[in-house]
Amino acid sequence: MPTGAATAIVPSSQVDDPASPVVRFGWDRPLVLDSGARLAPWQIAYQTYGTLNAARSNALLVCHALTGDQHVANTHPVTGKPGWWETLVGPGKPLDTERFFIICSNVVGGCLGTTGPASVNPQTGRPWGIDFPLVTIRDMVRAQAMLLDHLGIDTLFCVAGGSMGGMQVLQWAASYPERVFAAVPIATAAIHSAQNIAFHEVGRQAVMADPDWHGGRYLEAGVKPAKGLAVARMGAHITYLSEAALHRKFGRRLQDRDAPTFSFDADFQVESYLRYQGEAFVERFDANSYLYVTRAMDYFDLAADYGGVLANAFRGTRTRFCVASFTSDWLFPTSDSRSLVHALNAAGASVSFVEIESDKGHDAFLLDEPVLSATVRGFIDAAARARGL
Amino acid sequence: MPTGAATAIVPSSQVDDPASPVVRFGWDRPLVLDSGARLAPWQIAYQTYGTLNAARSNALLVCHALTGDQHVANTHPVTGKPGWWETLVGPGKPLDTERFFIICSNVVGGCLGTTGPASVNPQTGRPWGIDFPLVTIRDMVRAQAMLLDHLGIDTLFCVAGGSMGGMQVLQWAASYPERVFAAVPIATAAIHSAQNIAFHEVGRQAVMADPDWHGGRYLEAGVKPAKGLAVARMGAHITYLSEAALHRKFGRRLQDRDAPTFSFDADFQVESYLRYQGEAFVERFDANSYLYVTRAMDYFDLAADYGGVLANAFRGTRTRFCVASFTSDWLFPTSDSRSLVHALNAAGASVSFVEIESDKGHDAFLLDEPVLSATVRGFIDAAARARGL
Repeated sequence: MPTGAATAIVPSSQVDDPASPVVRFGWDRPLVLDSGARLAPWQIAYQTYGTLNAARSNALLVCHALTGDQHVANTHPVTGKPGWWETLVGPGKPLDTERFFIICSNVVGGCLGTTGPASVNPQTGRPWGIDFPLVTIRDMVRAQAMLLDHLGIDTLFCVAGGSMGGMQVLQWAASYPERVFAAVPIATAAIHSAQNIAFHEVGRQAVMADPDWHGGRYLEAGVKPAKGLAVARMGAHITYLSEAALHRKFGRRLQDRDAPTFSFDADFQVESYLRYQGEAFVERFDANSYLYVTRAMDYFDLAADYGGVLANAFRGTRTRFCVASFTSDWLFPTSDSRSLVHALNAAGASVSFVEIESDKGHDAFLLDEPVLSATVRGFIDAAARARGL
Repeated sequence: MPTGAATAIVPSSQVDDPASPVVRFGWDRPLVLDSGARLAPWQIAYQTYGTLNAARSNALLVCHALTGDQHVANTHPVTGKPGWWETLVGPGKPLDTERFFIICSNVVGGCLGTTGPASVNPQTGRPWGIDFPLVTIRDMVRAQAMLLDHLGIDTLFCVAGGSMGGMQVLQWAASYPERVFAAVPIATAAIHSAQNIAFHEVGRQAVMADPDWHGGRYLEAGVKPAKGLAVARMGAHITYLSEAALHRKFGRRLQDRDAPTFSFDADFQVESYLRYQGEAFVERFDANSYLYVTRAMDYFDLAADYGGVLANAFRGTRTRFCVASFTSDWLFPTSDSRSLVHALNAAGASVSFVEIESDKGHDAFLLDEPVLSATVRGFIDAAARARGL
């Protein structure tokens, strides 16, 4: 049900062509940001799976993580890889596309079809670069809410996501409690820690240190800060794993050789793996977008918007929550989820909490973890019954 | 007691002028490296504190960590800061300069007076750059042994160090058991983990990504890869702390402002702190040296030299060991020390082991930690009595 001045468009430029449907909002439908800036015109790209029922009651929003995108359960148009959450989303999966109408949109500030720093600034006719206004997790959620309005969806049966996606889940539940029947925040936190800010800052400095970043105006220079962005990704990637996972996957095994070369070649498999991760990332992600989405996470402190008391963000909520963490996740340790669960309980919310045994680190939420699947399936099934679905 | 062709010199260039005594070894006294390369001529810079007794039995070698140097207990000639281990080394301190003759030398591959990649390659007349041969922890120890030979010191009462310094302590005990009466390896491991290799690799890639690195030949270009090295240091610095320490020191406190600026400025104190750490490091450390010393740690796997059985490295040893770790050290977690202690016990060694409660992370070994001081003091006093000192 299109509303207002929003119209679906056929996009042209690379950034604007996400191989996804796009909704464009005109000058009269600005996205009003936490910074005070008004983004207009702007657009949002999204994917949907399954069918919206007649009552419009089976919509399920999936929120993507830092460098994810809307291609949650289909082959990625750039990388050719499976969707990033096909472990959980698909026909017969816990987030069942035969049962629910599943929506996933690219975040504002992203680079796969939703307006971000690589988009054209309508006032200059040039890419925004770092003149793009800073966005927050709440801004991402506001943009999603406008998409849902456009799609004619008042209430979500469920909103689910991990990591930065989990932050959006929490923001949804806080900002629009009446629109969220169930919420599944996984491997996330209601506040971004000093250590996580620190890791993000190193990544940003790595990008900005690359002379090909050109003060953020690299698109106009026809280059990209590939080396800096690769270094940022390499460092971040370590934080997504665990020491145990790295030990199990690579240990100190050498790469295609019997003895160390006594050089700076990638002697160790773990080095070669990281270099590959860095190079592959550069192919699919915009460097400035990386700055914006990391910054959005850094700014996330849900309690701060509610007088410093996290429980106040959920006071009186009727949303039912399923919180999950992983034992080896040191980026969003279980203590973060536990604090969240304490606040939810203090707010009188209905909340299930599972800490899942895994040695796979933060990335476990993206992997085939049977206990996660069983947990989400059980929670969703019970919520669907309660919802009459 | 100078031996062979070694001579003390008055050095000239910046790298060669460490404000320390230097011993130079000529073409006839090469340092034979694990890689097979022979380094000659070469030199080693060192500091000493206290007085060698007539029996030459009170020498205590301190081994420095990754980016440390020989200035263990005196004002640093470049930074003007106190020596890096004045918490433990000095008059009346656990490593008592009034009682012991304490020696600390700059590692081979370093940049404060000992031959390293910033030194002049005698075959080309230009700085070595990354033509400098790779060095290992064992090479660092070989160089120290040649220094001790030059100083006429046959046996060490003790060898002590943390982190990479602790690796050297272990290598000393394994390579020269008859020369080491007591050994104090702190916050270290007998094998460098995959995760630690990964972090080091990111740092190296950050340096090498800087165009001012010039393929390692930046000294000739009259520049230095300051941005890349700063990024490397920022990332590494996070690993030296703990989440708890970062939370306590900085939390999410803002830097000289009441509200976030919605920009990429250093809004958070932790960002400002990290940027400062990066900038300060660049002033005092050579980028290529950083590549070499990180690589030396990566290659460290003491068991590998002994048929894959760590205990074999210490079989029959009469050295007495004091092993210490810190609860919040996630770079060299207690599990690393525990594995070491198991091996030492299996080898029949005399070993004390303390895990020290601290929230300060890996850096705790450099800080004023009363339990560490008490532990080292007790161990050293007992060892000194046993040694008749």
